[in-house]
Amino acid sequence: MERPEIILAPGPTPIPPEVYLAQGSPLVYHRGPGFGNLMTEVAERLKVLYGTTQDVLLMTASGTGGLESAIQNVFSPGEEVFVPLAGFFAERWKQLAEAHGLLVRSIEYEWGRRVRPEDVDAALAEHPVKAVLLTHSETSTGVIQPVRELAEVANHHGALVIVDVVSSLGAVPFEFDAWGIDVAVGGSQKALSASPGIAFVAVSERAWRAHETASLPRYYFDWSIYRRYAALKDPENPWTPAISVMQGLRAALELYFQDGPEAALARHRRLSRAVKEGGKALGLDLFGEGLEDNWTVTAVRAPDGIDADTISDRIRADFGCVLAPGQGPLKGTVFRIGHLGYYSELDIIRGLAALEMTLERLGYPVKRGAAVAAAEGVFQEDVEG
Amino acid sequence: MERPEIILAPGPTPIPPEVYLAQGSPLVYHRGPGFGNLMTEVAERLKVLYGTTQDVLLMTASGTGGLESAIQNVFSPGEEVFVPLAGFFAERWKQLAEAHGLLVRSIEYEWGRRVRPEDVDAALAEHPVKAVLLTHSETSTGVIQPVRELAEVANHHGALVIVDVVSSLGAVPFEFDAWGIDVAVGGSQKALSASPGIAFVAVSERAWRAHETASLPRYYFDWSIYRRYAALKDPENPWTPAISVMQGLRAALELYFQDGPEAALARHRRLSRAVKEGGKALGLDLFGEGLEDNWTVTAVRAPDGIDADTISDRIRADFGCVLAPGQGPLKGTVFRIGHLGYYSELDIIRGLAALEMTLERLGYPVKRGAAVAAAEGVFQEDVEG
Repeated sequence: MERPEIILAPGPTPIPPEVYLAQGSPLVYHRGPGFGNLMTEVAERLKVLYGTTQDVLLMTASGTGGLESAIQNVFSPGEEVFVPLAGFFAERWKQLAEAHGLLVRSIEYEWGRRVRPEDVDAALAEHPVKAVLLTHSETSTGVIQPVRELAEVANHHGALVIVDVVSSLGAVPFEFDAWGIDVAVGGSQKALSASPGIAFVAVSERAWRAHETASLPRYYFDWSIYRRYAALKDPENPWTPAISVMQGLRAALELYFQDGPEAALARHRRLSRAVKEGGKALGLDLFGEGLEDNWTVTAVRAPDGIDADTISDRIRADFGCVLAPGQGPLKGTVFRIGHLGYYSELDIIRGLAALEMTLERLGYPVKRGAAVAAAEGVFQEDVEG
Repeated sequence: MERPEIILAPGPTPIPPEVYLAQGSPLVYHRGPGFGNLMTEVAERLKVLYGTTQDVLLMTASGTGGLESAIQNVFSPGEEVFVPLAGFFAERWKQLAEAHGLLVRSIEYEWGRRVRPEDVDAALAEHPVKAVLLTHSETSTGVIQPVRELAEVANHHGALVIVDVVSSLGAVPFEFDAWGIDVAVGGSQKALSASPGIAFVAVSERAWRAHETASLPRYYFDWSIYRRYAALKDPENPWTPAISVMQGLRAALELYFQDGPEAALARHRRLSRAVKEGGKALGLDLFGEGLEDNWTVTAVRAPDGIDADTISDRIRADFGCVLAPGQGPLKGTVFRIGHLGYYSELDIIRGLAALEMTLERLGYPVKRGAAVAAAEGVFQEDVEG
């Protein structure tokens, strides 16, 4: 009997049965009140998650499509941006900006480091740019970048703040309006545990003003067109959207809001701590700065003499558990455990048990049950406390 | 009891239960053999449908995203294209090309006309262009454009042939290789009756060569990146794809190929004839040239004194039947009945019955059962013949 794989990777994350049912249910037609209500409900809940009173645009695309929309809609060729580089997804910002003829200034950090606001401050003081492109949860390293502080610096220098929140929105604190963010791009398949296929983009008044003069060519991702259709009496997408994914996303948001954002954030923090304590109990080195804030994904160094990809291959083959391998310079030395989305305490525990057995099978000295016991420790503490 | 609406619009088309189940089933993870097999199976079946040995790229987007990919990947700014204009989707080609700084030459036809190959021949003889942008099934008018003949003309003049086959692929004859097509963009939610969210793009060798020097900015839709990931041992999408939609698309193709393309085309022809004979039996004027070839959607003129939008609004309110309203200059004078995708003979008959009752309610003199009888005539003929 082939069971579905157990996803412990940072997205797509596990899909709740209610979401499967919703995306497998009869599609509402994409013109008319049925879809209008669907879109409105999704957008309104996303606004709460973003912490914004601004429009949230919904696009049929992966998160990367949403990121590209930010470049196409805010800039004209040759304009300058600043991208602090500290991982795979920060590099993607750079690639995206360069693909569109922007001039990219950057600081390079070792992967796994937090970007330092004072460095950005100094760089912007020396050379102003139109915008700073940030990655909130750097999924490749597990690091949560200090977006609040970085936005403050950028705002101080009059630069727009454009943030990839694909794997952070709903998993760690984020406040679009309060932090002075101008564009934030999220995705359906991360903390919300819907299926992939919908990107969301929040846009500040300042970014809309920049959009008015932005001349980069665009069509499918043109924000103005999305805004026009969203303003119809029965809101629409300009193009035929991924209706089934949207239906699933509504169900996922319904579940998310049953707990409420505060409880969901606390759960992410708790599960993250359990994974990290579990890893430490096995004597593993955790990777990346600011572990206490990294609630989305935990990057773990493979023990000496064991290739990290061997661990993720073996745990998938033996237990059907999907971990994420290391990316870029971390390939082979780091594996990553995702814990954002629809996870319970016991989902984490079974994953740690699978990791224990896998490491033992690969010759690493494991005290059986040690990681599980450490995770239990985290969960019991909550109750005792 | 609220029932799902009955879609008689040209896409999204009715979704078979098998497709709902597949898109509501546990997602395969998007890296590894599970997804690789899914992608390969979908792409291989699409190659048969396209009639090509070329790669078919799969992108998470609506058809319009796929169309934009053709512009971004084949051209450099300032290059010239020819777009024969005869409907809403031909206009979209023009808008897309102009959004990216291409120079668009065109002939304007009255909506509902077929593009004449001799006109294109004369235009290209007078002024060569890099490519001709065609719309196979002009969904706004129901007209199937003579792509085969137009491609021959374009090939003769050394122009690339780029075709929107979003609402034609799988519903009417199309031969990518044999007709000398260079790029053809299809979508999941039309004749195949999967959910919207996946666009497919077939690319000829000639188009790949043009791609090598095409300098328009692009990233999310960059064909080279898709090709690189599709060539992996376990084929992948570069970005996290709409996995659930892809699973549904596989199930839809499985159903489509149970009958086989030939039977599916014959069914589209038969259902189209039934709709047209039904309309005529009610004394309605059918719109558009080449009715015998228009197997995807039938455009019908509203009777004198009745607004076409009133008909589509009323049939939706009273019977839950979704027809498509007229677009552009046809708004208010034409309504459209979609019959591409997963339709049976009885689906068409119930739609015609709803149309009869709706027209009667709006004061049009209807002989009850006349359209149904005409459709039955078409279906009985097939058996008698």
